[in-house]
Amino acid sequence: MSKKSIGTNAERELLKKFWAAGWAAIRSAGSGSMHFPSPDLLVGNKIRRLAIEVKYCSSDNKYFPKIEIKQLKNFAQYFGAESWVAIKFSRMNWVFVSLEDLYETNSNFVFSRKNLTKGLSFEEIINASIY
Amino acid sequence: MSKKSIGTNAERELLKKFWAAGWAAIRSAGSGSMHFPSPDLLVGNKIRRLAIEVKYCSSDNKYFPKIEIKQLKNFAQYFGAESWVAIKFSRMNWVFVSLEDLYETNSNFVFSRKNLTKGLSFEEIINASIY
Repeated sequence: MSKKSIGTNAERELLKKFWAAGWAAIRSAGSGSMHFPSPDLLVGNKIRRLAIEVKYCSSDNKYFPKIEIKQLKNFAQYFGAESWVAIKFSRMNWVFVSLEDLYETNSNFVFSRKNLTKGLSFEEIINASIY
Repeated sequence: MSKKSIGTNAERELLKKFWAAGWAAIRSAGSGSMHFPSPDLLVGNKIRRLAIEVKYCSSDNKYFPKIEIKQLKNFAQYFGAESWVAIKFSRMNWVFVSLEDLYETNSNFVFSRKNLTKGLSFEEIINASIY
């Protein structure tokens, strides 16, 4: 499977989980030709809205270009949404990581499998009442 | 230009207008393989969120399959958004129509160019305080 279709499948899997939990969810069309920030997924219910970057990770560290995190934060601020990163490490359940829990290097943000406990599970994210 | 690219261009044009007005906006990836409702555009600011079906119309009447309007309404209810239809009749500005102002036939909903005054302009929709 191509890297792109792995990413698309991950987004669709998560989209289905949110709908099954009674949240509305859409995948962004994104587009190389547009220059506006756009999260992979935007989900919401009557109370909360989450802008989410969705990643599959087959190694121990997931790296995020700084621009990607900056755009996620921007979008969320304009839209009035929380910003989250959702990572599926192989053989693990989805983990939702707040941007404050990403580690900043010179060139990237990174989240390591060894820090899994810093993230929230799917059940925790949909039940969190942080806002 | 194909019908699909006319539609995509219309969505992008409107997306740009919302960003330029300080709203966040994303286009839905949609997908034939997914069975979840999904508006063409989802836009928001810190106060309001709008789920929008976006249409270009070169004739006098724009028809909407009933299922499309039902899904728009469903999505908006789950997400906690207002539901709107945005139509660009040729040589006219965008008009935003609330679902109550669509005319229901046996098989469709329809909005006619002659009812343009029932809709809101772009400036009116972003400044409306109906919620």
